[in-house]
Amino acid sequence: MTATDQNVLREDLPLPLCVLRAAALDRNVARFQRYTESAGVLLCPHAKTAMSPALFGRQLAAGCWGLTFATCAQLQVARRHGVPRVFYANQLVGAADIRYVCGELRRDPGFDFYCLVDSMPGVQLLASRVADAGPGRPVNVLVEGGLAGGRCGVRDVGTAVAVAEAVRAAGPHLALAGVEGFEGLAQYRDASRREADVREFLGFLVRIAETLDGRGLFQAGPVLLSAGGSAFYDLVIGQLKAARLSRPHQVIVRSGCYLTQDWGAYAGLQADLQRRAGSAGPDLEPALEVWAQVLSAPEPGLVILSAGRRDFGQDAGNPVALAHVRRGTAERRPLRDSGWQMTAVSDQHAHMTVRPGHGAEVGDLIALGPSHPCTTFDKWRVVHLVDDDYNLLEAIRTYF
Amino acid sequence: MTATDQNVLREDLPLPLCVLRAAALDRNVARFQRYTESAGVLLCPHAKTAMSPALFGRQLAAGCWGLTFATCAQLQVARRHGVPRVFYANQLVGAADIRYVCGELRRDPGFDFYCLVDSMPGVQLLASRVADAGPGRPVNVLVEGGLAGGRCGVRDVGTAVAVAEAVRAAGPHLALAGVEGFEGLAQYRDASRREADVREFLGFLVRIAETLDGRGLFQAGPVLLSAGGSAFYDLVIGQLKAARLSRPHQVIVRSGCYLTQDWGAYAGLQADLQRRAGSAGPDLEPALEVWAQVLSAPEPGLVILSAGRRDFGQDAGNPVALAHVRRGTAERRPLRDSGWQMTAVSDQHAHMTVRPGHGAEVGDLIALGPSHPCTTFDKWRVVHLVDDDYNLLEAIRTYF
Repeated sequence: MTATDQNVLREDLPLPLCVLRAAALDRNVARFQRYTESAGVLLCPHAKTAMSPALFGRQLAAGCWGLTFATCAQLQVARRHGVPRVFYANQLVGAADIRYVCGELRRDPGFDFYCLVDSMPGVQLLASRVADAGPGRPVNVLVEGGLAGGRCGVRDVGTAVAVAEAVRAAGPHLALAGVEGFEGLAQYRDASRREADVREFLGFLVRIAETLDGRGLFQAGPVLLSAGGSAFYDLVIGQLKAARLSRPHQVIVRSGCYLTQDWGAYAGLQADLQRRAGSAGPDLEPALEVWAQVLSAPEPGLVILSAGRRDFGQDAGNPVALAHVRRGTAERRPLRDSGWQMTAVSDQHAHMTVRPGHGAEVGDLIALGPSHPCTTFDKWRVVHLVDDDYNLLEAIRTYF
Repeated sequence: MTATDQNVLREDLPLPLCVLRAAALDRNVARFQRYTESAGVLLCPHAKTAMSPALFGRQLAAGCWGLTFATCAQLQVARRHGVPRVFYANQLVGAADIRYVCGELRRDPGFDFYCLVDSMPGVQLLASRVADAGPGRPVNVLVEGGLAGGRCGVRDVGTAVAVAEAVRAAGPHLALAGVEGFEGLAQYRDASRREADVREFLGFLVRIAETLDGRGLFQAGPVLLSAGGSAFYDLVIGQLKAARLSRPHQVIVRSGCYLTQDWGAYAGLQADLQRRAGSAGPDLEPALEVWAQVLSAPEPGLVILSAGRRDFGQDAGNPVALAHVRRGTAERRPLRDSGWQMTAVSDQHAHMTVRPGHGAEVGDLIALGPSHPCTTFDKWRVVHLVDDDYNLLEAIRTYF
């Protein structure tokens, strides 16, 4: 990609800015694709993270099987941008949502779609709405298994069987393609039990799949087993591949945050994964940064930046200060271990506690490393792809 | 406004949805405008809350003096949509930002613009960048006073004088129009001291104004004194109007959240205000709601909704459950005192703890009342204006 004549450090663009380092992004895309291919699983990345068709395109071009979305509004963006295969990692419930999906299935024979079911009322509602909408072919569903105390999903194998039987009873309208779960909720649990919780949950998904297989409840073709946020995909691959079914099955991992990593939530979880997987794990780099400017140093030890909770997520902690660039220069002074701490945040400002001799002056630039990509991307309509010298390569749009 | 043939409760649109109740909104606009006019102050609402030109238009049509913004990106939206007078309630520092402002001042003689300064380096940087950009007239600035431990703004009168003298020294490029502060940060302090902190801070702003006036540092014309978030505007009006200057002064309040109120942060602060101001305070109604759907009831006492942290803010607490509508009906059952509690939130889901006999089924609709409008509006590109029966009147766009 050719650089434009605009540069972030030169202040050619108004700050704050959300920046994606293109080289790191491209390496992450290639490495994670290669990792899943070597593991013999399908990659269907959760694309809600960035909701950017420019990134959908990079992931599809690298060879991913499909893309994952979680709401009908997201699905509409995907379809408008030509995404052919969608894993809808959610219950499909709404009348307008079901009408939309069925319309797309009818309109485009190449559209391949999968969604989740977890209750008999849900199956009956979906089946009756599909029957009304007439997509011309069955809607593929997977039974969702849920973590106790967690989100959607059946909590026991018996309910999974009842739900799968309800799907069979809704025969012409629905078809049972596999079993799904999201083990990632365990990442919010105590570090000492989270890995055990994930293993137990994956075992539960495998038991559901083996039971439904034993009862002949899956439709023809390979059975799909899917899990995998961005924290435990190594465990997902290991356990779901080991399921013993009467016929072939395919494992689908849905990690999305590998694209950009982060400086908080997934940085720590990725370190855990590297410890478990060793050199087998993909080497991923943080690619997402928010650049802001020093507006004021109104008290000793306090620096106010021009980015706030409208510019980055805080759900996994405040961003970390990465680098300081003196206004008018291009030299990046690392800040990771220099005592800069974001101690308060307003809508448009970050309040940084700094040490004496911090050296920052009004107009200097500060790079921030967000703690969670999902809640930072969604603050921006445009994200700036930059080269290693922060020349602007491309302004990519997001569609939240 | 005429209703379209789409209705939220009938599921004509995909959920979740962000909804503005038009009648409440219109009453809030009219009542707050009338309140400031009766008080003899100028209203310049902070429009960053909703960033919606359709709402800018309503506020300007009701007679507000101008609109307030906090970043250059917001200012560009305002200018593209024809906003003639902007109070930029922030330090203006960035090179690209200053070029943009000066370009607009040069291009449009009707553009009236005010921004803030709080340090000598800031004044020098702004003056030199304005000199380079050549707007053809001075940039109006106000000295920002800051709350100790807070954000931008001078912390003492001596610094304010030094900053004002630096503005005078930058004569052809900058002109000193007044004094500004944001007392609203005190709302995050302990309830027992917040009112006293606000009063003390407003007294500090008045002392700055009286001192700068005594030294003849303001430009010709009425002196502008501005403060006023959405929590303490009654105190702002009282104290700033009482400033004793050698010539006329105008008080500008910048409250933005009066448009919609909320069910958390400002609901409580508005109740405090009504206690202080009695019947003199404006009667404001919450107008903003997020509608979601029941996706699953996977465990006793747990209901999962189709809206999450991507759909509403949590910085002032989770939304409250307002109403339950049985799928296929239009009857709203109030939920405020029925024990529904949002106990966990994912990107796209809310985890509601409910009592036995909660009566909600898969596909039912739930109205949520956000705790802070600013961080809910910014999750949406389209907000739906509805009548009292939730017929869609107009889909208005936001520009974050």
